[in-house]
Amino acid sequence: MATRQSQGVTAPQGFQASGIHCGIKKPGIPDLALLVSDVSGPIAGVFTKNQVVAAPVILDRQHLAKHTGRAIIVNSGNANACTGKPGMAAAQTMARLVADRLDIPRHEVFVSSTGVIGRRLPIDKIKAGLPDLFARLSTRGGPQAAKAILTTDLRPKEHAVQGRIGGRVVTVGGMAKGSGMIHPNMATMLGYVTTDAAIAPAALQQALEAAVNQSFNCISVDGDTSTNDTVLCLANGLAGNRPIAAGTRAYQQFVSLLTTVCQTLALSICRDGEGVTKVVKIAVEQAASPAAARQVAQTIATSNLVKTALFGEDANWGRVMGAIGRAGVPIEQSAISVYFDKVLMVRRGMGVGLAAERRIAQVFKKKEFTIRVRLGQGTAAAHMWTTDLSYDYVRINASYRS
Amino acid sequence: MATRQSQGVTAPQGFQASGIHCGIKKPGIPDLALLVSDVSGPIAGVFTKNQVVAAPVILDRQHLAKHTGRAIIVNSGNANACTGKPGMAAAQTMARLVADRLDIPRHEVFVSSTGVIGRRLPIDKIKAGLPDLFARLSTRGGPQAAKAILTTDLRPKEHAVQGRIGGRVVTVGGMAKGSGMIHPNMATMLGYVTTDAAIAPAALQQALEAAVNQSFNCISVDGDTSTNDTVLCLANGLAGNRPIAAGTRAYQQFVSLLTTVCQTLALSICRDGEGVTKVVKIAVEQAASPAAARQVAQTIATSNLVKTALFGEDANWGRVMGAIGRAGVPIEQSAISVYFDKVLMVRRGMGVGLAAERRIAQVFKKKEFTIRVRLGQGTAAAHMWTTDLSYDYVRINASYRS
Repeated sequence: MATRQSQGVTAPQGFQASGIHCGIKKPGIPDLALLVSDVSGPIAGVFTKNQVVAAPVILDRQHLAKHTGRAIIVNSGNANACTGKPGMAAAQTMARLVADRLDIPRHEVFVSSTGVIGRRLPIDKIKAGLPDLFARLSTRGGPQAAKAILTTDLRPKEHAVQGRIGGRVVTVGGMAKGSGMIHPNMATMLGYVTTDAAIAPAALQQALEAAVNQSFNCISVDGDTSTNDTVLCLANGLAGNRPIAAGTRAYQQFVSLLTTVCQTLALSICRDGEGVTKVVKIAVEQAASPAAARQVAQTIATSNLVKTALFGEDANWGRVMGAIGRAGVPIEQSAISVYFDKVLMVRRGMGVGLAAERRIAQVFKKKEFTIRVRLGQGTAAAHMWTTDLSYDYVRINASYRS
Repeated sequence: MATRQSQGVTAPQGFQASGIHCGIKKPGIPDLALLVSDVSGPIAGVFTKNQVVAAPVILDRQHLAKHTGRAIIVNSGNANACTGKPGMAAAQTMARLVADRLDIPRHEVFVSSTGVIGRRLPIDKIKAGLPDLFARLSTRGGPQAAKAILTTDLRPKEHAVQGRIGGRVVTVGGMAKGSGMIHPNMATMLGYVTTDAAIAPAALQQALEAAVNQSFNCISVDGDTSTNDTVLCLANGLAGNRPIAAGTRAYQQFVSLLTTVCQTLALSICRDGEGVTKVVKIAVEQAASPAAARQVAQTIATSNLVKTALFGEDANWGRVMGAIGRAGVPIEQSAISVYFDKVLMVRRGMGVGLAAERRIAQVFKKKEFTIRVRLGQGTAAAHMWTTDLSYDYVRINASYRS
């Protein structure tokens, strides 16, 4: 499987992209991105579970009912959320302007916005930027688009992989934006995946949900999403493979490619976030059910006390035990083991001693490591990636809008 | 109602207390406290809901089954949690040593520990300190005890109030410890309340639970407690009032006194915590049920994005809307109003404009203010107090054990 890392969403055949500055952000900072496929194709989407949703999410959900897409337009610098009917009208206008230029139905255009909540979207600036945005569309435009969707991110996030499915080379590419910060749930997370695979719409939706569950949802918290979170996957079929149906071997191969792209993007969000000095995998095993495993993993992953201990490289394993105990699932304290990488620190619910503490103190100095919790109750497992909570996290979020 | 603020747990008749350094913490820092009533009396307790519980909490729950108490011993610097059978034996020894000196049954002695999790309790140091601890017992010893139960707190927390119940003056006094930090749920929260009221044991337990629900539980998160959280209330009856029974006017008067003491202590934990620059009340109104109101209030109160915005004095009201939307209770976005103190910022789910934003920016500069959310769904209400998330929060928790 070859990796074509630099091209992101334009790595698969028949996709063009561009990114420009249209005036929403400060001068010179890209704030408008466009992605267009040469032909229409099936599109799948996964959206925020937040009940307060931004106008573009409402619009995309409506458009997704037709299961066909060709273009995606994204602005940064303004979330178009909590903006009421004027906000909805602005999102519709964004879609209409792109549809008119491409001469396609409006429901084939998808819209995202990310940035400050509650400010009216400057639709006139977006409209004025469209000629330039279309003029710059290019099969090498992935990186420009990837830059234009960012907010507080330090680096653009792109990835692409290839594989053979049914004798044809299929490419899956993607770009993502996670607001510079620790959890995508804490600010808008956007992800766009393109592929030239031919695939049935229902199979594409199923495949995207499977991939997202093993990637973006492992660095987020269920139900703990922003008003704008969106992942879209557009498949234009130009690879010429026999259309992939759910449940086949080709489908499994496709899910594997899609998951690889989504996991790489998700971990990029963790690693590349400003304020992040560590990325730690929380692996929970021997749980009574997958839901219980996930609940324990999430509680550890979102504990401010655990996250500040990671930042301080303080091997304070008691905070992990405290998080396990308050996760809200029945546990048996005396059955719990906890490893930091391969070092056993807690056995039968008790610390094994100061020698182990000295060893895990070394593990805490690594930039990436694993906290493995064995609940001793069953066979279910789940994992999450978390990051530390640093001074820079506070700095960035205390002055996001200044 | 007179306030005898300086005397804390020794304000009511017939209570003595002391606090000393026995060697668990660094030299000179008090780490062992004792509270003794002249006579035995009913005792009530509320404990952590965490399933990982420290040895002293297990012991206190056993002792509480007899509903009678006379002494409470507390060490700081070591939580005696995740310490297995040796930890349980150490907690039992602490109780036995105090019971032997007072020549009372062991179940009349209650034990608390707070500090680092997973280290063996140095029971020999505690034993060696007991003669001095008993020698210093005094009816003016409340402040010494209040200092000895602290960990990262900056200031001791004490309060006492008096009222007339059934023609007699009844005093309620208390001391608390909340680990310097933002939420009692994030580290051990300990509270001890004394009273000379005569009251039936069941009524005392009921009264304590009512008072805690309006105080300590409003700055904490249900089920999100540490391994050691404990609130105990000991009533020695020396005020000579007719014993208070549940459901009477005298009971309501007593609950009111108890709630005042607990709320003052709870707010002291918020205000006096290092790293805290603001204390903000989250009031949720017009909810469909009390549980829904509480859930929304908690979600706002625990949002890191809201808390960093408070620290940065960034009037980012969109983060409040985002928290409401992910609280996990059904809401109607277009029915929501949000006020910052008296300034209406969100009406029918929409921001009302930049003029209001400029006004709430002034509110964000205050040290204490109220965020009022009206859900427009019913008549239920709930409130919580929260604090900001500051650089100092990260600093203190990143290096707690160093």
